[in-house]
Amino acid sequence: MTAPDLPVTIDNIRTAAARISGFAVRTPLLENAQLNADVGGRVLLKAENLQRTGSFKFRGAFNAVSSLNDDARALGVLAWSSGNHAQAVAASAQIWQIPATIVMPGDAPALKIENTRSYGATVVFYDRRSNNREEMGQRLAAQSGATIIPPYEYVETIAGQGTAGLEVAQDLEGTGIVPDAALICCGGGGLSAGMSLAMQDTWPGLPVYAVEPAGFDDTRRSLERGERVTNAAASGSICDALMAPQPGKLTFSINRHVLAGGIAVTDEEVRAAMAYAFRVLKLVIEPGGAVTLAAVLNGHIDTKGKTLIAVISGGNVDADLFASALQAASA
Amino acid sequence: MTAPDLPVTIDNIRTAAARISGFAVRTPLLENAQLNADVGGRVLLKAENLQRTGSFKFRGAFNAVSSLNDDARALGVLAWSSGNHAQAVAASAQIWQIPATIVMPGDAPALKIENTRSYGATVVFYDRRSNNREEMGQRLAAQSGATIIPPYEYVETIAGQGTAGLEVAQDLEGTGIVPDAALICCGGGGLSAGMSLAMQDTWPGLPVYAVEPAGFDDTRRSLERGERVTNAAASGSICDALMAPQPGKLTFSINRHVLAGGIAVTDEEVRAAMAYAFRVLKLVIEPGGAVTLAAVLNGHIDTKGKTLIAVISGGNVDADLFASALQAASA
Repeated sequence: MTAPDLPVTIDNIRTAAARISGFAVRTPLLENAQLNADVGGRVLLKAENLQRTGSFKFRGAFNAVSSLNDDARALGVLAWSSGNHAQAVAASAQIWQIPATIVMPGDAPALKIENTRSYGATVVFYDRRSNNREEMGQRLAAQSGATIIPPYEYVETIAGQGTAGLEVAQDLEGTGIVPDAALICCGGGGLSAGMSLAMQDTWPGLPVYAVEPAGFDDTRRSLERGERVTNAAASGSICDALMAPQPGKLTFSINRHVLAGGIAVTDEEVRAAMAYAFRVLKLVIEPGGAVTLAAVLNGHIDTKGKTLIAVISGGNVDADLFASALQAASA
Repeated sequence: MTAPDLPVTIDNIRTAAARISGFAVRTPLLENAQLNADVGGRVLLKAENLQRTGSFKFRGAFNAVSSLNDDARALGVLAWSSGNHAQAVAASAQIWQIPATIVMPGDAPALKIENTRSYGATVVFYDRRSNNREEMGQRLAAQSGATIIPPYEYVETIAGQGTAGLEVAQDLEGTGIVPDAALICCGGGGLSAGMSLAMQDTWPGLPVYAVEPAGFDDTRRSLERGERVTNAAASGSICDALMAPQPGKLTFSINRHVLAGGIAVTDEEVRAAMAYAFRVLKLVIEPGGAVTLAAVLNGHIDTKGKTLIAVISGGNVDADLFASALQAASA
């Protein structure tokens, strides 16, 4: 076992679970008879779209903000994010009653921008193709004294995100159910790293797969190559939440040990999965949150007679895009 | 207490809970920080849109079919329904591997008709304005020997539907949370009757309100009048699931004792509630399932500092109607 040497431990995740308890939603592990019948197996959905702020990001952000010392926290926090981490940091800052500044791409979904502002944060825009959002964020943080809350390259962020995996293990304790594999939506790799660590603490050797949009499958390719590779494009998928340019250094140092591999799904498969979730599951899932369901529904992983855990990472999607996904599926 | 004299008892509901266990979904009781903040109180949502077949109706139908003796059940079952009971009876029959015939209005949502057929049932249509669906159903049942599974006028249907209330009480046991009131989506009144009985067994005197579409508020008016009254119109609300012409005789004999009153909401309020559920809750809710949320969001009940239980009764809605509700809300 390599686990003891990794930069995030099960104890970090347990500590995070205690910190976020009562603030984060203990999201349900959902099962649907129709989905099971359609794939010939058993799919347990960790519904993080029902999480506070509409995505799993609240777990990591609130844990990270809560782990700061009082003096540092009082100066406020800053984050860059395409939208879900933005909302999560903004909401965490609102709970702690401290200022938050969020650096967001100008083409982020309107809903994510509105929501971030609704939590009282100051939003600063950058251009996804030209500006370096990290430089911009670091400059702003240096000016205000705010602490940067990284979306994934941070132990407390990863530990917080990993709490979703602890809950899955707790929910199945005593049921006799042992998953055959788990599928996790993957952008920078924080959720994959944290949840894998938590679930493999209960189920050693559980095969966990990172699921990414085709063309943005940097983690899948990095796992194959044994080193971090970068995506060719910076934009172009409907999965706005999963377009990190390359795996994080910290997250990949974990993921290369805990992940069994990566799966890439097309935007068309994602739209169909969103429509399936509407029609059968009665869940609103954003594109990036639907990649695992897309993988399950399209034979990217063996489902026959298997029990799979699939994470639904978020539900923050604009009405127009959602409606067009429903139309595309019925056409 | 009038409870001991009522035609459905807590024991009927407990027996039903044991029968449906492992077949029905134990749906989560969801809470959303944003919703709580928006109404200045605490709203606990019993998410029956996540139930098998997409509505609470599966609970009653499966309990009713399961309570038949083997010989009767082997001859099959028959039901009339605008859609949710139809799917529930069809799915229950499929589980028991017996034939099902469903009498549905020709203008039922396409999704509900498709789903009913997908469970292997034979669908027979009637015209909502002219045919008497009960006569048609009784004639067909007499021909085949099938047992009629009533959508609400039946002890085992009501008892099965009441299991949702048992789960709410179990989920709050030991939490110290005592609800101030409960809101239940009301068509024929089976869910209102069953859930009220179950919840008031744990919380005697809990005020429970039936929520109906404006113009189809027969239960509200019947409670005020002290006798069953009929709606003026037979169609015209988007809440297709809640257009029973009048309260059931059996259900009203219970509801007149257990309900504190009725609330009527407009279709416009329902559309806005569906859009709110999409945007904030990340749940797909059908019009009839959203009336309680509409009541909470529009001040039809006092929410300030209160803890309310609100049932989301179903999520079977066509994509076009759903998309138009989202558009109406953003216009």
